[in-house]
Amino acid sequence: MKELEDRIRREGTVKEGDVLKVDAFLNHQCDVTLFDHMGAAWAEHFAGKTITKILTIEASGIGIACIAARHFGNVPVVFAKKAQSINLDGEQYVTTVYSFTKQREFPVIVSKKYLNAGDHVLLIDDFLANGKALHGLISLCESAGAVVEGIGIAVEKGFQGGGDRLRDEGYDVDSLAIVESMDPATGEIEFRG
Amino acid sequence: MKELEDRIRREGTVKEGDVLKVDAFLNHQCDVTLFDHMGAAWAEHFAGKTITKILTIEASGIGIACIAARHFGNVPVVFAKKAQSINLDGEQYVTTVYSFTKQREFPVIVSKKYLNAGDHVLLIDDFLANGKALHGLISLCESAGAVVEGIGIAVEKGFQGGGDRLRDEGYDVDSLAIVESMDPATGEIEFRG
Repeated sequence: MKELEDRIRREGTVKEGDVLKVDAFLNHQCDVTLFDHMGAAWAEHFAGKTITKILTIEASGIGIACIAARHFGNVPVVFAKKAQSINLDGEQYVTTVYSFTKQREFPVIVSKKYLNAGDHVLLIDDFLANGKALHGLISLCESAGAVVEGIGIAVEKGFQGGGDRLRDEGYDVDSLAIVESMDPATGEIEFRG
Repeated sequence: MKELEDRIRREGTVKEGDVLKVDAFLNHQCDVTLFDHMGAAWAEHFAGKTITKILTIEASGIGIACIAARHFGNVPVVFAKKAQSINLDGEQYVTTVYSFTKQREFPVIVSKKYLNAGDHVLLIDDFLANGKALHGLISLCESAGAVVEGIGIAVEKGFQGGGDRLRDEGYDVDSLAIVESMDPATGEIEFRG
């Protein structure tokens, strides 16, 4: 998606340690017009599929998923939570995810009420690096007996391999920008053609 | 807002300890059509004001704020973050907030790049109880020299007093449903008339 690649080139910052900061428009400050265009792109890609629910993970995926939902007939958006809170009762699917950004493991939970065997789920997230968060969401769907119809990602760091592993496993992964390489010294970013 | 009150009555659950669970449609599973109607209601209420930015706090406020932004000329949405992460550099406004839900204090941060003296800010959140989170957001705006033009809340727990304290301080608080009392024994919920 050229619009997203252009924004990443213009406003993204490459940092040491394989970090790509896009917090100007994606995951701290949010450009909702861009989100809307991203939703339209995923709707086009997944047009042949029946999607009954969008599943994402807090926090950065939520805004993207909610705006994308408007391109999928306003299906419900469920966001998996990263920590136990007194507002969630005992009836949950739980898995554990290692966060590249936070460099630690954390539990990821979703209420059994909001993920069911009849659901055809589109997973949405802002970033795909090694794929740990997505494998967590897939595991939650498996626990519920829900079908993962596809995976919509804003920025895939292709060189970390998580996206290609998911494709090898048979998942339909639509990443709107795939970074093939990036250089913290020059700030240069190359996208998959 | 009758639609929201009806949903709370129908799908909300009153728990011991002043907890109102609305995770069926507001803050775990998200009804984006409802969010859209909430955004329209705030746009009507704040019609006389110039809003250049929406500020919310992760995680539950993000989806609501992003959809509401579409009713305010697609202004940028910034979400304050609840913990330090390696993706945020040193240039941040920081404050501390006590969470009623999580029953502990946590730092709340926003990058100085995304909150500025020229900003006219609408604060949006899913819940207003004692007002601690909102006072944190207000404090971030004060640090930046940004003007708080108003506060849009989905569910205010009126009996906890935070909303009325903010109104006494002169803030224009538009809560779409104000719970005046609720009873965990009977499940009954009374709204401010």
